[in-house]
Amino acid sequence: MVERYALEPLKSLWTLKAQYERWLEVELAVVEAYEELGIAPRGTSEEIRKKAVIDVEDILEIEKVVDHDVIAFIKSVTKNMGDEARYFHYGLTSSDIVDTANSLALVRASRHILDSMNKLADVLYKKAVEYKNLPTIGRTHGVHAEPTSFGLKFLSWYAELMRDIRRLNDAIEEISVGKLSGAVGNYANIEPVVEKIALEKLGLKPTPVATQVVSRDYIAHILSVFAITAGLIERIAIEIRHLQRTEVLEAMEPFREGQRGSSAMPHKKNPILCERLTGMARLMRSYAQVGFENMALWHERDISHSSAERYILPDSTMTIYYMLEKTRYLVENLRVFENNVRRNLELTNGLVYSQRILLALVESGMSREEAYKVVQKYALECWESGESFKEKIQSDERISEYISKEKLDSLFEPDYYLRNVEEIFKRFEK
Amino acid sequence: MVERYALEPLKSLWTLKAQYERWLEVELAVVEAYEELGIAPRGTSEEIRKKAVIDVEDILEIEKVVDHDVIAFIKSVTKNMGDEARYFHYGLTSSDIVDTANSLALVRASRHILDSMNKLADVLYKKAVEYKNLPTIGRTHGVHAEPTSFGLKFLSWYAELMRDIRRLNDAIEEISVGKLSGAVGNYANIEPVVEKIALEKLGLKPTPVATQVVSRDYIAHILSVFAITAGLIERIAIEIRHLQRTEVLEAMEPFREGQRGSSAMPHKKNPILCERLTGMARLMRSYAQVGFENMALWHERDISHSSAERYILPDSTMTIYYMLEKTRYLVENLRVFENNVRRNLELTNGLVYSQRILLALVESGMSREEAYKVVQKYALECWESGESFKEKIQSDERISEYISKEKLDSLFEPDYYLRNVEEIFKRFEK
Amino acid sequence: MVERYALEPLKSLWTLKAQYERWLEVELAVVEAYEELGIAPRGTSEEIRKKAVIDVEDILEIEKVVDHDVIAFIKSVTKNMGDEARYFHYGLTSSDIVDTANSLALVRASRHILDSMNKLADVLYKKAVEYKNLPTIGRTHGVHAEPTSFGLKFLSWYAELMRDIRRLNDAIEEISVGKLSGAVGNYANIEPVVEKIALEKLGLKPTPVATQVVSRDYIAHILSVFAITAGLIERIAIEIRHLQRTEVLEAMEPFREGQRGSSAMPHKKNPILCERLTGMARLMRSYAQVGFENMALWHERDISHSSAERYILPDSTMTIYYMLEKTRYLVENLRVFENNVRRNLELTNGLVYSQRILLALVESGMSREEAYKVVQKYALECWESGESFKEKIQSDERISEYISKEKLDSLFEPDYYLRNVEEIFKRFEK
Amino acid sequence: MVERYALEPLKSLWTLKAQYERWLEVELAVVEAYEELGIAPRGTSEEIRKKAVIDVEDILEIEKVVDHDVIAFIKSVTKNMGDEARYFHYGLTSSDIVDTANSLALVRASRHILDSMNKLADVLYKKAVEYKNLPTIGRTHGVHAEPTSFGLKFLSWYAELMRDIRRLNDAIEEISVGKLSGAVGNYANIEPVVEKIALEKLGLKPTPVATQVVSRDYIAHILSVFAITAGLIERIAIEIRHLQRTEVLEAMEPFREGQRGSSAMPHKKNPILCERLTGMARLMRSYAQVGFENMALWHERDISHSSAERYILPDSTMTIYYMLEKTRYLVENLRVFENNVRRNLELTNGLVYSQRILLALVESGMSREEAYKVVQKYALECWESGESFKEKIQSDERISEYISKEKLDSLFEPDYYLRNVEEIFKRFEK
Repeated sequence: MVERYALEPLKSLWTLKAQYERWLEVELAVVEAYEELGIAPRGTSEEIRKKAVIDVEDILEIEKVVDHDVIAFIKSVTKNMGDEARYFHYGLTSSDIVDTANSLALVRASRHILDSMNKLADVLYKKAVEYKNLPTIGRTHGVHAEPTSFGLKFLSWYAELMRDIRRLNDAIEEISVGKLSGAVGNYANIEPVVEKIALEKLGLKPTPVATQVVSRDYIAHILSVFAITAGLIERIAIEIRHLQRTEVLEAMEPFREGQRGSSAMPHKKNPILCERLTGMARLMRSYAQVGFENMALWHERDISHSSAERYILPDSTMTIYYMLEKTRYLVENLRVFENNVRRNLELTNGLVYSQRILLALVESGMSREEAYKVVQKYALECWESGESFKEKIQSDERISEYISKEKLDSLFEPDYYLRNVEEIFKRFEK
Repeated sequence: MVERYALEPLKSLWTLKAQYERWLEVELAVVEAYEELGIAPRGTSEEIRKKAVIDVEDILEIEKVVDHDVIAFIKSVTKNMGDEARYFHYGLTSSDIVDTANSLALVRASRHILDSMNKLADVLYKKAVEYKNLPTIGRTHGVHAEPTSFGLKFLSWYAELMRDIRRLNDAIEEISVGKLSGAVGNYANIEPVVEKIALEKLGLKPTPVATQVVSRDYIAHILSVFAITAGLIERIAIEIRHLQRTEVLEAMEPFREGQRGSSAMPHKKNPILCERLTGMARLMRSYAQVGFENMALWHERDISHSSAERYILPDSTMTIYYMLEKTRYLVENLRVFENNVRRNLELTNGLVYSQRILLALVESGMSREEAYKVVQKYALECWESGESFKEKIQSDERISEYISKEKLDSLFEPDYYLRNVEEIFKRFEK
Repeated sequence: MVERYALEPLKSLWTLKAQYERWLEVELAVVEAYEELGIAPRGTSEEIRKKAVIDVEDILEIEKVVDHDVIAFIKSVTKNMGDEARYFHYGLTSSDIVDTANSLALVRASRHILDSMNKLADVLYKKAVEYKNLPTIGRTHGVHAEPTSFGLKFLSWYAELMRDIRRLNDAIEEISVGKLSGAVGNYANIEPVVEKIALEKLGLKPTPVATQVVSRDYIAHILSVFAITAGLIERIAIEIRHLQRTEVLEAMEPFREGQRGSSAMPHKKNPILCERLTGMARLMRSYAQVGFENMALWHERDISHSSAERYILPDSTMTIYYMLEKTRYLVENLRVFENNVRRNLELTNGLVYSQRILLALVESGMSREEAYKVVQKYALECWESGESFKEKIQSDERISEYISKEKLDSLFEPDYYLRNVEEIFKRFEK
Repeated sequence: MVERYALEPLKSLWTLKAQYERWLEVELAVVEAYEELGIAPRGTSEEIRKKAVIDVEDILEIEKVVDHDVIAFIKSVTKNMGDEARYFHYGLTSSDIVDTANSLALVRASRHILDSMNKLADVLYKKAVEYKNLPTIGRTHGVHAEPTSFGLKFLSWYAELMRDIRRLNDAIEEISVGKLSGAVGNYANIEPVVEKIALEKLGLKPTPVATQVVSRDYIAHILSVFAITAGLIERIAIEIRHLQRTEVLEAMEPFREGQRGSSAMPHKKNPILCERLTGMARLMRSYAQVGFENMALWHERDISHSSAERYILPDSTMTIYYMLEKTRYLVENLRVFENNVRRNLELTNGLVYSQRILLALVESGMSREEAYKVVQKYALECWESGESFKEKIQSDERISEYISKEKLDSLFEPDYYLRNVEEIFKRFEK
């Protein structure tokens, strides 16, 4: 965990204390199930709940001796209990508790993440609508291509985020499983019905077949979904970094009152948040990689996944949550310099309308090959010389044979390129 | 592509020729759409279809000059066409063709992969049923734990594969999109309706918002699903490698007539196929990594994903397909040595029943702590000395106070551990 | 950072306080250089050193306002200073401090790591010598191959570790660079001589060309070396996990007094440390991956590497250090069960000598093809039936024609396989 | 392998035929060693060399039956041999041949790569010198920072490449090892002296301790070095992509006569080669990842690395070679638009000189805090309004108290920032 990037409520979720509380929560659910089934006497779970103490230091002290975290937990938490302690952890193996509690943590963390995604989606959509009619130059390969709508950038992110939301929803549904089926997952010392009742209390379902643990494909999948979501955030961050570069300056990430850009250069306003998010996307990919490697456990389980998960489960969920929260802040408070957007659109003196001229020539009867040649010729000339493409085109006699001057003029209008934007937006109408 | 791992029908799907054929398929769908909409004259698409030639060598020759594969393709494929050529690629940008065809390739490749997964699922399920009642020792940390069902191993893989199948189904559904929306995805020179009609002919839907290309989250996600599926295959392969080790020898991958295990050691039968699959899982993870990195394209697209995809799309789909086909062969023809399975179960002279003794003591009234101590004491002694745990337990007087001799005997029976296996299987009844 | 895996002295090295102390160390070295060069008045550095306060909370408070960690640091640390403060951070840019201090941290962390590697090397070598003459079965593909020396396992790890040590030595040498060359690395506001003097005081050299920062290839390389070292530890850990499996039981990782293997199964002794190390190797690989991605910064630098490094520099160095320390403990205290080693060697009733028979037949004049056939025939038969390979071979008449009975007997001796082991060890004599 | 990115001489090196030729080369070196040692009769190696046939189809046919590539190779290549065949592959295990030949391939491939790196270094250095005195705006965070030398960009790449060259040199030296030590690496059936002589003939040294194979740390390390080199190329490519963006247009990758930028937009000149290289860097990282995972083989070896290496060894070496060759072409033919470089330098109306003003104020006696405030105030105002920073500064009365007008003027000169550039270049004088 990196303190500065740990936000609530995720941060509290991953403390050692919170982990022990989840373990107790699972243990209690099992005792309640035993009680419901008449295996434990009435009142056992209430008694246990009352007497259970979570004393982090004590647990850690005991762990030093027994070198086993769950045994240490049980010893400590039951120390004030009387006879009812016999129903505590009864019929269970450590992994029943650890893995089920692990699912609880992941589900809860992921729900916060999902909330944050939904809020980000709203902001993206709002910005998309806000800038729907602002023409901007579309850039492919970093080079001016054709005019498009500034709002479409946001809508494209929104559409991608909606896919990520759907993927995460599916992954949460998947991962909402636990296992209370004993040492090798075959219910040798606990009945399936106990698992069913106890997990239901926890909002989980039994994984259909467990080994000692729940299969790690669930975690690998949700980590992939996080990595993919981070990929979108990286895309947004890189777009803004591009737009904020001095030569472009169409947008700028929020710069707070009192903030300083550089210790050396007082004029600097840098897209540091966007850069931070870019770096974090690399981390998110690396967690997925570890998640994939964690899958092939030996036989009925080995515990190699555990040390790795102690790092990546807290770090991945806290990092993606941080990224989402900061991206929302970033997009919500993004400054857009519309004048610069328009200035850049005109930077090439009409070159960006070249395809439209090309198509108009073809429509008017010129062959595609010939049209491409003449348009490319002028385009390349103007690209080199800085001359006005529009004027060159208008003064070419061969072109005049095919297209009238009035018609030619109208081909150099950005609005034409936005005429279908409304229809794209309609796909998302709420 | 590694020739020896390239299986049909995947291999043919990724030839240059097949790629050009898909490009033509997309171009033709667009012409047909124009025709339906009355933009192109009736018969245009038929004419074009008749005259289109795919001449791979010619395309590559032209590409050497123009340094642009789609332009080379268009020049070559239209060379015999007359006036109808004007409707060929009309209003489109290269990426409309490339990306839509790319989706076609991925969808088709993935459907073959899905078929192979379904076939593997059948085989796994059949084996699970076949070995449902064979008791085997469950191993955690590589160490004998408690008896379980040999069939549960297969059922666990089956259950995980069913999740992978569902994930791939979702991913295929997702990725069944194309885009025919022009240079920056805003339908500047082509109407949305053309895209809709043309894509429908190809079995695709429009991606809701495109840049010049379809967003790369689709591909990142399907590559993750492949990597996760490969993780399952790795798990299966590693299990079999373990079972085939000389000391264990409970199972062996098929060894064909005439096959030789070693140039030096004539007696060797090695799980080389399982090892090959293990290595391939590493590749599958690496493809996902590249897929994640390919997402954050600049502005309305950069083409950095393209070189990487030329490697990883063919290699990832061919490799996972190979893995699935070989895993089915492997599982279907797996030799299981039931005698050795039983022999290994008895290897610890009853130690593996220790938890059952522990629980029986607790049930009979001994405190958990005390029961754990006495059982662990004998367990550790026997582990070291090789003495019979069963005998030790039977001759302990303190234990006799709690449990009768008859009862004690029955606690050392493997069948007890399989009593709930049927119920697990019921979850998958067809 | 995962608390339970953070060992001293690495842990203290990565606290925020320690970081600020390193920043101050760099700032002071620069002031001293100014003083030496007569730019700052004599006594300035002493004065500054006396008045500088590191107050972590105060710095963090200021950072909340200015959103820039170095500016906050300067403001806070100089708050008690008088006029001499003007020489504090004079001519420097933030990255001069941060990146130079970063090198200090990495160099210091890496030296601890190197020490730990050297200590591990000693232990491995000692164990290699200890078990040099213990014959064991060599296993390829997990299947018994030919006898070899148990000590060779350790020697192979030792030899690999010596390569890792050399690589890390080189990487530390490489990374012992700083930069005090200003905002874009061209010494606009600071002279190269200041950098030279100041870095020398810190035990560093100037990186030959900096941008605003030191190139990230240095870090990518050292992270790779860590990942490769982790790969060796994984190899060791997996070997021990294999040797500890119940059926093999040739070795066991140390099990402490009072330790408990399982909450459910009292007899269990599991190689949990080895498994933990295995999982950590995955993390180490993932850090290298992030390191590679951090290299391609924009223009004269972007800060995307920074957020990622806040995680991976502490975590990678602490994790590899933990791994090395634990591996030393593990190897030093490894229990080897020599009886079981010998038992396993005889498990195949002589099959593992098959190649030696094969070669003896060839030497005695039988063609290679024929010899292979006869030996493989018996080998496969015995493999299946469990019959004694030795007896089969001895009773074959065709073989008797080529090799005498006495000679045949001698071919089934393990010592033959160790005859060149001494010569291998000689390569490492100290 | 992706056909279009496979360049000679690398491509030929990785054909199946070339592989078999290397295998034969190793086999022959061993026979020669036997002959030298008097084990094989004089003339044996000559005879074998004469009669050996490499018939790829035949080998593959045999492999289909025996399912073992080396056995198939031996059968086929010796088919015309007489009695001398007994010395062919004598005392060897398959991996002796495969792994030693593998080293040969890697060493040879890496030498070509090293050559290409050296050639690229020359070109980078030449360009660095060519543009040494061209002032350009240094950019941090994509935002204008301070003036610097355009040539320094190239020099920074050059310096980094020199480190990569040193790393690769070391890695080649490391990897120049083979092993001819039999099934489990203990020279059971072959003497160390045979290995020594044979490897020397091949330009290799014995790996100090082998298992059945050479340890995979060698390959993991060289793949890391390739990935790091690719990271530099990515850095170069991304810089050029930035410089080629329409708003910046300071440089452009070569655009060949006849080349077409877009099928739709005739004016486009895109940095497609740079983008291609960017994508390839992702692949190079992924190969290193697989290399790391390939290290922890089981016991005296498992063969899981082999399938993965069949992909990544050819692909990684061919891809990095392609990248290097193309980068050299790119840099050598890079078009630099010096006018635009100068235009961009002036884009902020003097803001980029802000730190110099700040320092001059501090030098003239203003406190750092106050100086920062006044400079940042004007800087931020001008940033927003587009007013001239220079004029604002010159008309501030407080500033005039500290700095004369003449002095102030001189602070807005770019050459000042290049005054130490010569000294940086001196570090590399040849």
